[in-house]
Amino acid sequence: MRDWPELVRVIRGDRVESVHRGAVVIAGPGGPVEVWGAPGAVIYPRSSCKMIQALPLVEAGLESDPRRLALACASHQGARVHVETASAWLDELGLGEPDLRCGSHMPYSEDAAADLIRAGEAPGQLHNNCSGKHSGFLALSKHLGADPDYIEIDHPVQRAVREAFEEVTGAESPGWAIDGCSAPNFACRLDGLALAMAAFAASGGDVRGRAMVALRDAMMAHPVLVAGEGRACTDLMRAAPGVAVKTGAEAVFVAIVPAQKLGIAVKIADGATRAAEAVIAALLVRLGLLDPQSDVARRLTHGPIRNRRGLVTGHYEVVL
Amino acid sequence: MRDWPELVRVIRGDRVESVHRGAVVIAGPGGPVEVWGAPGAVIYPRSSCKMIQALPLVEAGLESDPRRLALACASHQGARVHVETASAWLDELGLGEPDLRCGSHMPYSEDAAADLIRAGEAPGQLHNNCSGKHSGFLALSKHLGADPDYIEIDHPVQRAVREAFEEVTGAESPGWAIDGCSAPNFACRLDGLALAMAAFAASGGDVRGRAMVALRDAMMAHPVLVAGEGRACTDLMRAAPGVAVKTGAEAVFVAIVPAQKLGIAVKIADGATRAAEAVIAALLVRLGLLDPQSDVARRLTHGPIRNRRGLVTGHYEVVL
Repeated sequence: MRDWPELVRVIRGDRVESVHRGAVVIAGPGGPVEVWGAPGAVIYPRSSCKMIQALPLVEAGLESDPRRLALACASHQGARVHVETASAWLDELGLGEPDLRCGSHMPYSEDAAADLIRAGEAPGQLHNNCSGKHSGFLALSKHLGADPDYIEIDHPVQRAVREAFEEVTGAESPGWAIDGCSAPNFACRLDGLALAMAAFAASGGDVRGRAMVALRDAMMAHPVLVAGEGRACTDLMRAAPGVAVKTGAEAVFVAIVPAQKLGIAVKIADGATRAAEAVIAALLVRLGLLDPQSDVARRLTHGPIRNRRGLVTGHYEVVL
Repeated sequence: MRDWPELVRVIRGDRVESVHRGAVVIAGPGGPVEVWGAPGAVIYPRSSCKMIQALPLVEAGLESDPRRLALACASHQGARVHVETASAWLDELGLGEPDLRCGSHMPYSEDAAADLIRAGEAPGQLHNNCSGKHSGFLALSKHLGADPDYIEIDHPVQRAVREAFEEVTGAESPGWAIDGCSAPNFACRLDGLALAMAAFAASGGDVRGRAMVALRDAMMAHPVLVAGEGRACTDLMRAAPGVAVKTGAEAVFVAIVPAQKLGIAVKIADGATRAAEAVIAALLVRLGLLDPQSDVARRLTHGPIRNRRGLVTGHYEVVL
């Protein structure tokens, strides 16, 4: 990450206050077509690869409801629609919240968090932003007749995820670590992640291709299930129809662009979400997919940054 | 910030996931004694310079209560003790919450925020983390018989702050911007900020020197008023007696070390608080001021980083 370029500047008044370095790969099915920074950098894709982690579920023909597929790819904010969709899915599997292994955290949705506080309730695992992905893991695990600890690295579910991950990223994973939700997260090169997203963009008519189309189309059809009201993924997919985008922790962001058969992978060196959001939005503008005057494009790529009284104190600059 | 060194690495599993570059100056009264990165970098000190912003108040003899002086230097979390201390101060001035110009935000304290939500109340300006600084501004403004908009750049309060700021940082400020709380924030060189902190550490017996001693001693005597339970400033001052530390937005951190007549200023290029906290804690350990085995030193400089289920997923590494 030492030689990655500055991609985002945070301006206060008329002076640069902070900067974010990053790397970007835009790939077609044949490989990278445009690169900033080091395409061979090894990263953890974190939640940006949930559509890859959902491939074994869909390829096995276990789920085709677009709402559930969107939720399987989601880092959702634990609003009612997310919790209820996951809960109904588990019900149908004959399973429940205690079968999840993702852990609990307060919903990212301020309204949902306030509802819990007012009710005097603690958050449950259904509120976890990854509960959709984990519901998908449970569906596959039940189908395979495997043991309950579906997040273990040698569990059949994770072996299937790893196989799909290595196939679509085009290389053996150089390692893995435990993600925030306790599932394994397989490392890959940044260009491998972009190549995988290009495969989702340009996928053909075989089993994998149909699964890829189903997942990306589900994300585009249900932007609010992939994140939630006011969140970057949801707002970007609403403003850029025909594009699927997904964020990951520590400032990863990917995009799937079927019309141009392109995949995009972004990683900000310091893990700052504000910078990953600014860069992915600027790239969508650059590719002609997002109106630069749209509210979300202005907000993510420029701001303005306002303070506690609503005064404008600064703005962002994306340098591509 | 281009050539600043990597100071903090964020490790997940056995791999670097994110990195933070930064600059550090450790200064004595005569100038820098140890430097990482560019000492001449111009930064906004943000809330790290509240003890400088409080100098005109104390030098005018308007306030000497250590609790109020600590609160004037605070970025507090809006717990009951902070709100009540600020409220009583305003009462005594014959002023109230509407006279503040800092704006409102939900208290950083989760308990205080939950209390407001349960009561169905919105936060007020007393909950703003800067309400102590602003109470001090109001006390000075009243004494000067100046108009109510004490945050304007040409207001007598801000003219007094600027004069003190330029004197203690040793140079004319190259510019200013509006801070999160709407007060002007004057830019300075990083070594100027460290020099100012060294002056607080080594201050003598004149009016300014006594004001500096009063402010730094108030911070050390009331760590909880400077931030709050569980916050880095509070925990560091409790664990490193005789040292005053203060954080600022966009990853600034300063320390005042009277026993060694040293001042420290840290700025992380990307604005990440986790990295500024790691670096200031590591510097206090390095100077023999903080036990490396203390809970706060371990937590801020190493972690471990745990996930939603409490599993260890990684750790920090500080490289000095």
